[in-house]
Amino acid sequence: MSFQSADTDAVSINTIRVLAADTVAKSNSGHPGAPMGMAPAAHILFSRFVTANPKSSHWINRDRFVLSNGHACVLQYILLHLLGYKVSIDDLKAFRQIGSLTPGHPEAGHTDGIEVTTGPLGQGFANGVGLAIAQAHLGAVYNKDGFDLITNYTYVFTGDGCLMEGVASEAASIAGHLQLGNLIVVYDDNHISIDGDTKIAFTENVEQRFLSYGWQVLHVDDGDTDLEAIYNAIAEGRKEKNKPTIIRLRTTIGYGSKQQGTHGVHGSPLKPDDIQALKTKFGFDAAATFAVPDAVTKAYADAAKRGAVAEFEWNSLFEKYAEKYPKEHAELARRISGELPTGWEKSLPVYTPADPAQASRKLSEIVLQAITPVLPDLLGGSADLTGSNLTRVKNIVDFQPPSTGLGTYAGIYVRYGVREHAMGAIMNGIAAYGGIIPFAGTFLNFVSYAAGAVRLSALSQHQVIWVATHDSIGLGEDGPTHQPIETAIHFRALPNLHFWRPADGNETSAAYYVALKSKKTPSIISLSRQNLPNLEGATIDKAARGGYVLHEVEKEDLTIVSTGSEVSIAVEAAGILEKEGIKTRVVSLPCWGVFDAQDEQYRLSVLRSGAPILSLEAYSTAGWQKYSHEQFGLTGWGASGPYKKLYEKFGITGPNIADIGKKVVEFYKKRGGAVVSPLIKAF
Amino acid sequence: MSFQSADTDAVSINTIRVLAADTVAKSNSGHPGAPMGMAPAAHILFSRFVTANPKSSHWINRDRFVLSNGHACVLQYILLHLLGYKVSIDDLKAFRQIGSLTPGHPEAGHTDGIEVTTGPLGQGFANGVGLAIAQAHLGAVYNKDGFDLITNYTYVFTGDGCLMEGVASEAASIAGHLQLGNLIVVYDDNHISIDGDTKIAFTENVEQRFLSYGWQVLHVDDGDTDLEAIYNAIAEGRKEKNKPTIIRLRTTIGYGSKQQGTHGVHGSPLKPDDIQALKTKFGFDAAATFAVPDAVTKAYADAAKRGAVAEFEWNSLFEKYAEKYPKEHAELARRISGELPTGWEKSLPVYTPADPAQASRKLSEIVLQAITPVLPDLLGGSADLTGSNLTRVKNIVDFQPPSTGLGTYAGIYVRYGVREHAMGAIMNGIAAYGGIIPFAGTFLNFVSYAAGAVRLSALSQHQVIWVATHDSIGLGEDGPTHQPIETAIHFRALPNLHFWRPADGNETSAAYYVALKSKKTPSIISLSRQNLPNLEGATIDKAARGGYVLHEVEKEDLTIVSTGSEVSIAVEAAGILEKEGIKTRVVSLPCWGVFDAQDEQYRLSVLRSGAPILSLEAYSTAGWQKYSHEQFGLTGWGASGPYKKLYEKFGITGPNIADIGKKVVEFYKKRGGAVVSPLIKAF
Ligand SMILES: [Ca+2]
Ligand SMILES: [Ca+2]
Repeated sequence: MSFQSADTDAVSINTIRVLAADTVAKSNSGHPGAPMGMAPAAHILFSRFVTANPKSSHWINRDRFVLSNGHACVLQYILLHLLGYKVSIDDLKAFRQIGSLTPGHPEAGHTDGIEVTTGPLGQGFANGVGLAIAQAHLGAVYNKDGFDLITNYTYVFTGDGCLMEGVASEAASIAGHLQLGNLIVVYDDNHISIDGDTKIAFTENVEQRFLSYGWQVLHVDDGDTDLEAIYNAIAEGRKEKNKPTIIRLRTTIGYGSKQQGTHGVHGSPLKPDDIQALKTKFGFDAAATFAVPDAVTKAYADAAKRGAVAEFEWNSLFEKYAEKYPKEHAELARRISGELPTGWEKSLPVYTPADPAQASRKLSEIVLQAITPVLPDLLGGSADLTGSNLTRVKNIVDFQPPSTGLGTYAGIYVRYGVREHAMGAIMNGIAAYGGIIPFAGTFLNFVSYAAGAVRLSALSQHQVIWVATHDSIGLGEDGPTHQPIETAIHFRALPNLHFWRPADGNETSAAYYVALKSKKTPSIISLSRQNLPNLEGATIDKAARGGYVLHEVEKEDLTIVSTGSEVSIAVEAAGILEKEGIKTRVVSLPCWGVFDAQDEQYRLSVLRSGAPILSLEAYSTAGWQKYSHEQFGLTGWGASGPYKKLYEKFGITGPNIADIGKKVVEFYKKRGGAVVSPLIKAF
Repeated sequence: MSFQSADTDAVSINTIRVLAADTVAKSNSGHPGAPMGMAPAAHILFSRFVTANPKSSHWINRDRFVLSNGHACVLQYILLHLLGYKVSIDDLKAFRQIGSLTPGHPEAGHTDGIEVTTGPLGQGFANGVGLAIAQAHLGAVYNKDGFDLITNYTYVFTGDGCLMEGVASEAASIAGHLQLGNLIVVYDDNHISIDGDTKIAFTENVEQRFLSYGWQVLHVDDGDTDLEAIYNAIAEGRKEKNKPTIIRLRTTIGYGSKQQGTHGVHGSPLKPDDIQALKTKFGFDAAATFAVPDAVTKAYADAAKRGAVAEFEWNSLFEKYAEKYPKEHAELARRISGELPTGWEKSLPVYTPADPAQASRKLSEIVLQAITPVLPDLLGGSADLTGSNLTRVKNIVDFQPPSTGLGTYAGIYVRYGVREHAMGAIMNGIAAYGGIIPFAGTFLNFVSYAAGAVRLSALSQHQVIWVATHDSIGLGEDGPTHQPIETAIHFRALPNLHFWRPADGNETSAAYYVALKSKKTPSIISLSRQNLPNLEGATIDKAARGGYVLHEVEKEDLTIVSTGSEVSIAVEAAGILEKEGIKTRVVSLPCWGVFDAQDEQYRLSVLRSGAPILSLEAYSTAGWQKYSHEQFGLTGWGASGPYKKLYEKFGITGPNIADIGKKVVEFYKKRGGAVVSPLIKAF
């Protein structure tokens, strides 16, 4: 099809521009420039191409739209309003106000029609790559001859800021490698960033860079008025099935404003007289605000209808699919619903203390090996540490473009390369798509490279699982550059994130059990390089509560609370102390967040009053004061050496912890008075 | 000069290969493959080009060498040994053992001759950009006609892994923009990464990508044996004065091993028979280990001598400079020494409570404006948030290539673009160079994008200052995507990092005072967007201790401890409580790390026993239990809205904190018994 102009094009575009100015002026906060500049591309994209049903915003085969330059969210809110999503004019008027559906940056799960949370620059771009991976994967698994069920496009709008970010560079490189043909990025090349003209810091040749990644690169010289060129570029992008496409769109930021083309329109409202002039220029009533001409309402209703019809047709196709491919239909329907298959958890490995000691990264591999056959929802990967993370189970196929001969899009293992940040943001996109549970490995220390993506997993409620191996000084020789100190408390302090540090086989199974059941919470599973014994008293059920009494005694003198590889050392210390008549309980606390969600009675039964509680973990002790009276951990950096010697060097051995425990007991005896659980608080 | 082959070239290269195999075999841990593959390039570089004096490893104009693929550090340790740095054969034998000078990855400040800490991939590449910026800057400021004082090259070796990392992409883009002619990167294109052949995840056209950034791009097809081509490429790189150079060097990983060219030689020792065969093939005694032929010793002594002579000549040039440019000489000598100018601190602004309320980001700008004239050591910047971070003082020049017309290399403000991670790593390189104190701004929330670089600042003891504005829900409308929750405790838990959160003008001056005096510690100064009153009782001296009693009363019922923008709210709450007869002290704790370093008596006088202590901060309460009995903060994400309304929504107001304070007082009264300072511990 070729471009057909419509009478309503100009007025639609100008309506978006005027609404953007009105919305930012009303809130007296926000970014009008990019929405005004990208209005033509947005209009062409949504009026001609995007197929999605605003009345059914979770339809699996909808086209995905990502506004990577999320500060321009007024644009997206306006589009959602015009298309008939649950965003009203009143919502636009409440832009950036507490409790509104129109917060300062788009938040997935908060506003109808928002696919992913954007604003932190570069994230949306990488999310788009994830959305496109999910489409390619589900399409390859479930599409059949005559049943093109999963065929949607992912459209991403991006500005200069996103393209300067490393996370976007990483994602662009892997997207090119993966030949993601259904990904189309529109780059708003307006030559303006917050500091002014992009020539002060961003003079690379963006087109050449994307060519180097293997993308189709197009450009539109006049993104302000050449609607046909915009249309043709997007159409070209859709035609190219073996490469992602980026369209460099030359636009004028704040088009229509007296200050257009300057960074004066980037991040603050237009002045009242400027808005009035804008309205007059575009043929609007200068006195009216938030006006939407009927013709525009109608044009967008037509676009919405295209989506509704498409979903209707898809649904009948899916019914026919049920007849011909009942198994696949049931599985896809289940995956779309987010339910796990009945009984999947029976595949989780269970251990007894007689089972041999193993590294928890190995125990993780055993879990993955056991559940992969019953959980087709999983899409694994690693940031080039597969053999160390043990994330790739046997007899599977890689997710690769078929032309590489290295795998297929139906493959369930992604070779992310050494790109941790993009891996995190891509997993967010995959999770946002639906039907897939992404997991991926790197060293725990390098999950920090992806901190920006991890916090958005948590904020956006994306079920993403990090297999974070080599999780302490226990990694040994690689030394302090690779040994996390601050990492656990960093992630424990994030709302809605489960940081797991299992101590043995059953706890590792528990971590996966809860992580896979937590549909709206990301998890980081912190795993050891070194072998850990299977513990007496550890069960999946107990560990699934986040914390539990591993070793119980009555009228204890001391409780040691610990996690992961240090729990067995706590048990050893307790044994030494008990021989000396100091009754010692041991509590394992593999996941603070899950433990905190247990009822108070349970929590107080685990970390009870009556005797001092000593925490033990081979990290910074920061945060442990919440659960203990005294803390033992690392007071500085780790070191390079064989791990057993490191544990000795840092005093994390049974005998030394027993000595510390004695000091704690004596100290509280001397002090006198009741020893109250640290969980008992004033408010 | 053209390439002159030497009799000792082959034996030198093979000595490096054999020593690499021996060293990794002895430790039974490490990476022999890349050192063996890069031995020819390393040999040509050090024997022909690098000018540095091993006996004087801090000479300012030495060529800098960075091994960005730090896992190949055996190569660097061997070179340091051969050149005569303080790395002995015994040190090589102690590779990856506790306390050795040869840890698992190179650590700056730990091993003589190591410029920057590498291993976390991509960091070294970006450090190299920082080192080159420092050279360009100091050269532009101090070089005079006939006095080419600062002219050194920065050489970086990198592997595929580093080039996949976003931090390196960001750094490469800004390096191209900045036209850093003295930066030469050698890319070890061995087609192997940990997961196997790079074709599984890294198929971009690296040469084209670097061309897009504006680099000179060269390649050597046979990096294993074509020494002349290696020489010529490096020589070309040195000749090009307006572009950084990358040389793609095709090598065979593990060259000489039976397993050469496979990832089998990447990360584990060669087998004994393989090492024996290697030695035989290269004409070494198969039974001898750690052998260095005399000819090789001699060749490297000659290279070292070249550096010693160069330093000698430089010193006499510098003496002549003293005569002709005494002021510049004194200043540069002082800067090289790391001393600050006498009396600089007198320029720090001082406030009284009568001074108007201001945002602490503004107070930070006032500090920078005041100290810039007396501290030429400063090199500022921002990740494209200059107008928000307020990091650029008036009447200065940008650090830019003169050809852009936008500044000069003598300029003291770097436009980093939206590249937080590279900015952090580049600052590490600048600090490592010496003579410069780098600082740079972004929102506190996006310092997390640079977490990988921040932890290496701390580990490497680089004096780097982050101007981290918009530091809480106080940023208001931008919403939870931009409002840090976990960030403070993340960075507080890092050893050797000062996380400052000043409450007013004097505390802001104190933060800069300590940050600038801390030559071996990085600082993050967390600053508000919103206005803060100047507090009665706050002084620079007191705040410089990290924590102090802001408002003292005898026999208090309660102490409220707080930081930054919440301190004035604590003061307001104390006022309300005192009217109700509840005597309330207020403690300001702007920097935990600095406070922790005070003597015990002082700390116990600030957070004393006798009454409960309540902490107040608009973040996760994680970690505050160390300093308080009860904690008030955010229990989840922030929200988008005007900041005053947000503070109300989250209960961070004087009246609500007074209510909470009452609950705390009642709770501890009811509980009875002594209330002991949380600082008093058992061990
Ligand atoms: Ca822009
Ligand atoms: Ca490689």
